[in-house]
Amino acid sequence: MATQGQVITCKAAVAYEPNKPLVIEDVQVAPPQAGEVRIKILFTALCHTDAYTWSGKDPEGLFPCILGHEAAGIVESVGEGVTEVQPGDHVIPCYQAECRECKFCKSGKTNLCGKVRTATGAGVMMNDRKSRFSINGKPIYHFMGTSTFSQYTVVHDVSVAKIDPQAPLDKVCLLGCGVPTGLGAVWNTAKVEPGAIVAIFGLGTVGLAVAEGAKSAGASRIIGVDIDSKKFDVAKNFGVTEFVNPKDYDKPIQQVLVDLTDGGVDYSFECIGNVSVMRSALECCHKGWGTSVIIGVAASGQEISTRPFQLVTGRVWKGTAFGGFKSRSQVPWLVDKYMKKEIKIDEYITHNLTLGDINKAFDLMHEGGCLRCVLKMNE
Amino acid sequence: MATQGQVITCKAAVAYEPNKPLVIEDVQVAPPQAGEVRIKILFTALCHTDAYTWSGKDPEGLFPCILGHEAAGIVESVGEGVTEVQPGDHVIPCYQAECRECKFCKSGKTNLCGKVRTATGAGVMMNDRKSRFSINGKPIYHFMGTSTFSQYTVVHDVSVAKIDPQAPLDKVCLLGCGVPTGLGAVWNTAKVEPGAIVAIFGLGTVGLAVAEGAKSAGASRIIGVDIDSKKFDVAKNFGVTEFVNPKDYDKPIQQVLVDLTDGGVDYSFECIGNVSVMRSALECCHKGWGTSVIIGVAASGQEISTRPFQLVTGRVWKGTAFGGFKSRSQVPWLVDKYMKKEIKIDEYITHNLTLGDINKAFDLMHEGGCLRCVLKMNE
Repeated sequence: MATQGQVITCKAAVAYEPNKPLVIEDVQVAPPQAGEVRIKILFTALCHTDAYTWSGKDPEGLFPCILGHEAAGIVESVGEGVTEVQPGDHVIPCYQAECRECKFCKSGKTNLCGKVRTATGAGVMMNDRKSRFSINGKPIYHFMGTSTFSQYTVVHDVSVAKIDPQAPLDKVCLLGCGVPTGLGAVWNTAKVEPGAIVAIFGLGTVGLAVAEGAKSAGASRIIGVDIDSKKFDVAKNFGVTEFVNPKDYDKPIQQVLVDLTDGGVDYSFECIGNVSVMRSALECCHKGWGTSVIIGVAASGQEISTRPFQLVTGRVWKGTAFGGFKSRSQVPWLVDKYMKKEIKIDEYITHNLTLGDINKAFDLMHEGGCLRCVLKMNE
Repeated sequence: MATQGQVITCKAAVAYEPNKPLVIEDVQVAPPQAGEVRIKILFTALCHTDAYTWSGKDPEGLFPCILGHEAAGIVESVGEGVTEVQPGDHVIPCYQAECRECKFCKSGKTNLCGKVRTATGAGVMMNDRKSRFSINGKPIYHFMGTSTFSQYTVVHDVSVAKIDPQAPLDKVCLLGCGVPTGLGAVWNTAKVEPGAIVAIFGLGTVGLAVAEGAKSAGASRIIGVDIDSKKFDVAKNFGVTEFVNPKDYDKPIQQVLVDLTDGGVDYSFECIGNVSVMRSALECCHKGWGTSVIIGVAASGQEISTRPFQLVTGRVWKGTAFGGFKSRSQVPWLVDKYMKKEIKIDEYITHNLTLGDINKAFDLMHEGGCLRCVLKMNE
């Protein structure tokens, strides 16, 4: 391509300071170095983790930066030594890398690849510990190793999943975060079995994906718990069979659920990021075997707590990141499942806007009716 | 037998009040009712759970009562409908019942049978919600459904494991609690696999049984953690390969262990009952897969806590009761393993006394050199 080896100037949404509106700027995107891939982002969605860092509550948040981690695009060029993708490949950037070489990848027990983590955590690329983004020579930090709120981004090659070129990028961009997180929490982390009773705390995109995953796993009851009763109608379409609004009860929600289920649920999922709800999610589990999975990201410094008796009597407390999916290996498989209509994506997309509308998109996210807003990048 | 259907008067150690010395009394033991078994206890050991309830810190403790739950004896008589044991059978009373009929037993997921729990928790027998122990007509509460600090006791038939009559009762009495708890935490709850790195917090009987279980499971490193360095020599004989005394370090013990093990242990076990140690045990686990098992019983009202990030990044927090063993089914199997010299018991017995010395035995328990003290009942 004509741009290969060149600095590309393109539009990106820059977060200069916590809580200040993002600014659409002309940014310079340097060519990919060894082991890096430059991607033309075509569509990006917004996720609550973007909003969390933008809010300033993330103690590891770095500014100025380019947020965004749920997207799809086409490889523009690759750096030295990159063999698994080439220009023109359709790809999904993955904030959770998969190098297949590190202790984590080789363990067979986790998807938490450690190879590029110290660099992505510091907002830079591993090769030279510098950013590929700048504005008039002033560097702009990367975010989560993806920075998809830019028309072009540079990522590590271990963070790129090559997908079916027939897949609609305006849809499968959602497979970069929320939908796999929910599905995988059920399939990989909890391993819900047929007939199980499931409770889901929080009916946003992740919670609905949990419902979809639980339905496909054969759960007999899928109880949605949310303080916004308006979410219940939509949730039915994703497999939720019963609804509980904690506001309708005087007793603690864990007791409500224990009473509803003859002793507690088999699996619960916290999809909010509220430590008090995490406790409820554990304690609504059935004695002897109930397993609670934490998916939501709590604010910095907050802690979970419970009586140890809850665990000694057989409950299990775990968590999940990206649903336990190995990103480069399994995101293409999820794309294929979507193409075969085995998992939903379209139904999570409630809004479509353009990059220029990104601040409006964030406003929408905090309104009840929004699940995912997908931004078209090249308009 | 001549005593069948009769009230038996025998010696028992009665706990009249929290923290007051036990009193050896003549107690009347009523005949077993339907579904009950009267056992002549020949040997009983002392466990920290007895001391906990005796101390008055157990909010569910009832006085006056007859403590004791780690013992072995011979069936004296059985009540109506009891088919699985008969007079003369050698048995181990099991504080964790196994009815094979309730939701818990049928789940295939837990050993926490629920059938007689409400009665044993209330210090009575299920049949008439009354005690079989009395002194001059005044009832004395049962404890844990076992009350083995008596020359005769009455238990529910679902709480009796029939064992090989060749097994020495002065040894296999230990299979009533501590040794199975430690072995089972490794084999059933954590499922430690060959090559794993294990940390054990607290090197009492349960901790040493964890070490033995981990060694037999093929663990590559078994790190014992205790603030009493004198315990380390004995611990070697049970499989502990390395010793860490938290008092020797300025940094938190979880950090010490993470540094010693290139990122953390694969499995940790808390065998003390200290909620702060429970946190350390979780946080010394390896990111991505480390599993921590709570075995110790914490004081009432105390809570465990951690940052949810510990779980979201792949650590698992669980607990165990009686090591997950199904009591009636598996205690006999453990007896057989002992007879085949596949598990240790003798090595845990540091003292042998008689029922009359029980207060001295409790004093010994709180001294460093004591693991298990076995009391001979009929002297």
